[in-house]
Amino acid sequence: MAVRGPLSGIVVADLSRILAGPYCTFLMAELGARVIKVEPPGKGDDAREYGPFRGGTSAYFASVNRGKQSIALDLKNAADKKLFERLLEMADVLVENYRPGAMEKLGYGWEALHKRYPRLVYAAASGFGHTGPCAHEPAYDMVVQGLGGIMSITGPQGGPPVRIGMSIGDIGAGLYMAIAVNAALLHRERTGEATMVDIGMLDCQIALLENAVMRYGVTGEVPGPLGARHPTIAPFEAFATRDGSIIIAAGNDGLFQKLCEALARPEMAQSPDYKTNDLRLHHQPRLKAEIEKELRKQPTRHWLKALDAAGLPCGPINDIAEAMAHPQVAARNMLVTVDDPKAGTLTLAGNPLKLSGFPDPAKREPAPELDADRAAILKELGL
Amino acid sequence: MAVRGPLSGIVVADLSRILAGPYCTFLMAELGARVIKVEPPGKGDDAREYGPFRGGTSAYFASVNRGKQSIALDLKNAADKKLFERLLEMADVLVENYRPGAMEKLGYGWEALHKRYPRLVYAAASGFGHTGPCAHEPAYDMVVQGLGGIMSITGPQGGPPVRIGMSIGDIGAGLYMAIAVNAALLHRERTGEATMVDIGMLDCQIALLENAVMRYGVTGEVPGPLGARHPTIAPFEAFATRDGSIIIAAGNDGLFQKLCEALARPEMAQSPDYKTNDLRLHHQPRLKAEIEKELRKQPTRHWLKALDAAGLPCGPINDIAEAMAHPQVAARNMLVTVDDPKAGTLTLAGNPLKLSGFPDPAKREPAPELDADRAAILKELGL
Repeated sequence: MAVRGPLSGIVVADLSRILAGPYCTFLMAELGARVIKVEPPGKGDDAREYGPFRGGTSAYFASVNRGKQSIALDLKNAADKKLFERLLEMADVLVENYRPGAMEKLGYGWEALHKRYPRLVYAAASGFGHTGPCAHEPAYDMVVQGLGGIMSITGPQGGPPVRIGMSIGDIGAGLYMAIAVNAALLHRERTGEATMVDIGMLDCQIALLENAVMRYGVTGEVPGPLGARHPTIAPFEAFATRDGSIIIAAGNDGLFQKLCEALARPEMAQSPDYKTNDLRLHHQPRLKAEIEKELRKQPTRHWLKALDAAGLPCGPINDIAEAMAHPQVAARNMLVTVDDPKAGTLTLAGNPLKLSGFPDPAKREPAPELDADRAAILKELGL
Repeated sequence: MAVRGPLSGIVVADLSRILAGPYCTFLMAELGARVIKVEPPGKGDDAREYGPFRGGTSAYFASVNRGKQSIALDLKNAADKKLFERLLEMADVLVENYRPGAMEKLGYGWEALHKRYPRLVYAAASGFGHTGPCAHEPAYDMVVQGLGGIMSITGPQGGPPVRIGMSIGDIGAGLYMAIAVNAALLHRERTGEATMVDIGMLDCQIALLENAVMRYGVTGEVPGPLGARHPTIAPFEAFATRDGSIIIAAGNDGLFQKLCEALARPEMAQSPDYKTNDLRLHHQPRLKAEIEKELRKQPTRHWLKALDAAGLPCGPINDIAEAMAHPQVAARNMLVTVDDPKAGTLTLAGNPLKLSGFPDPAKREPAPELDADRAAILKELGL
């Protein structure tokens, strides 16, 4: 088989469902690993029932399961257990996101598997991780977004907290999990030792909030939502223009000076109130008003051009359609297609893990139908 | 040296600044890699000037640079270049987040380095990646949040878009970069081949938005902000109680039935309008009103207990202080301390990459002062 990516040759036995685990194994598949999705017979992964649907198939499922294989196995049935164990012999990694304890009940806990398959890396994602007082509690993305604090610092200043527009609880856990699994595979390659990866969604939220955690620790002030501005850098936010808004990110003194010049207000850069980032942060409301006074004289398009020419990081607030239409998105192959046998051609997010020397095709393999690869896998295992 | 993690023995030459690159190398340091931060003489990493400060030192910098070493080198100075090249001989990975082209000007582009150091993995993070029409444009977190579309789907329904409360543009890129670097290191270990990793912040935003991209592609409707509810699952959102709010995530039919029972409204589960997730999604406003009618009868604390007992994923909306005080956060060692020589003891986010067999100490090494490790590194290189 051709080398599809840096994980070519790695086999993943994937028991994971819905989003956190499947996003991790999706990234592994994009990196060239062979991912064999083991699903319960009948309905398969719960995500197969999440909309939107096209041609009777879940596009939600298609998005994060493309390029995987599927076999339906009942892990409480003796014959299927035997088959699953043959799969584990051939696998490099087992990925699961059951509630802690569930795998032990099936006889497939880390301790048992590590004895029997000493080279198998075992990766678990769960709401709260496999240790601690809440280990056995259920969790979903939304619950973890609420528990972890990210909702409390996202939203209009003084307004109600809002959910992050994507499933950062699940996707965040999937990202950290992929980092840890790849590190575990490297460690195994170098030492022969397999380890257990134990990812907790709540842990990942705390990790993502490193800046807010640090700020609360240092200042004793509980961070709140700040609308569309940065907590510790100014000016670094969305500003009103004559016809809409523009984001300007003047992250250091030099950029602030350029901004003042581009606004034809060079003296602002010399103001004793604005000379350093710390001063600008303290006077942020007044600074914002002064900047907007100038920006309101022209439309967004004018300012994007003028500020860009001045070397200032700036940009529009795109909706999803505008973001997808950005010329750089096409140039970077960040929209790919799959030809799904039921749903037809689907446009999906591409792979941001760009590595030299590996293909990044514009067309990808679709997600498997439930149990689609049973015959091929049985044959491969000589069964 | 003791094995600190799965990346023990890996040496990272780290030219990266501010957040995206440093977050990647921070995770690598947490995984046991030795990270040698190469900073410009004088001011060092720009992030050393970002607040909040304590004892004259940047806690912003301390949070994502703990456990690294520092050497100040002027990469335009011949003697320092020589020293840097000695460092590259000993390094496994070079990480940088300059604008594309900057490394080439220094003579350290991927092509040149790959010829000279064929085993060196080269990892670059930039706003737009190293290819495409916008490759050379500057970008900051905030700009990329605006360009990529995440702001357009986060915020109150019908309200203005808001910034995600953490730097998801930078941190997102750092996470994908760490996944790719670990995969590249594994590939090198297995084949001897080193590759270039080219991470674009905008690419990563599109990747994070896989669900919104898929939805727009399938439905043709541009997703907008939804306040505190999930776009495709219902009921899966924040609800009002007598004294505040509660998040309930009833992600499948079984959980919805349990919810109806816990609310003493078992007949709701049988309603032809609510029988499937798709139906519940279509009738979400009415369903929400019916659920809130019951929830308003008791305070949040009552419902957390009752719904938890019924096995329903639910939770409060914590602020950062409440999140940090969650007993599971302590049990998982997700708050660690460093004793900074200037700032004193700082409480920082812990490491969510939990792997069996490796230490996860409660106290970590602080971030280095600029050039703190020069003498030791020179000695090690025999200079």
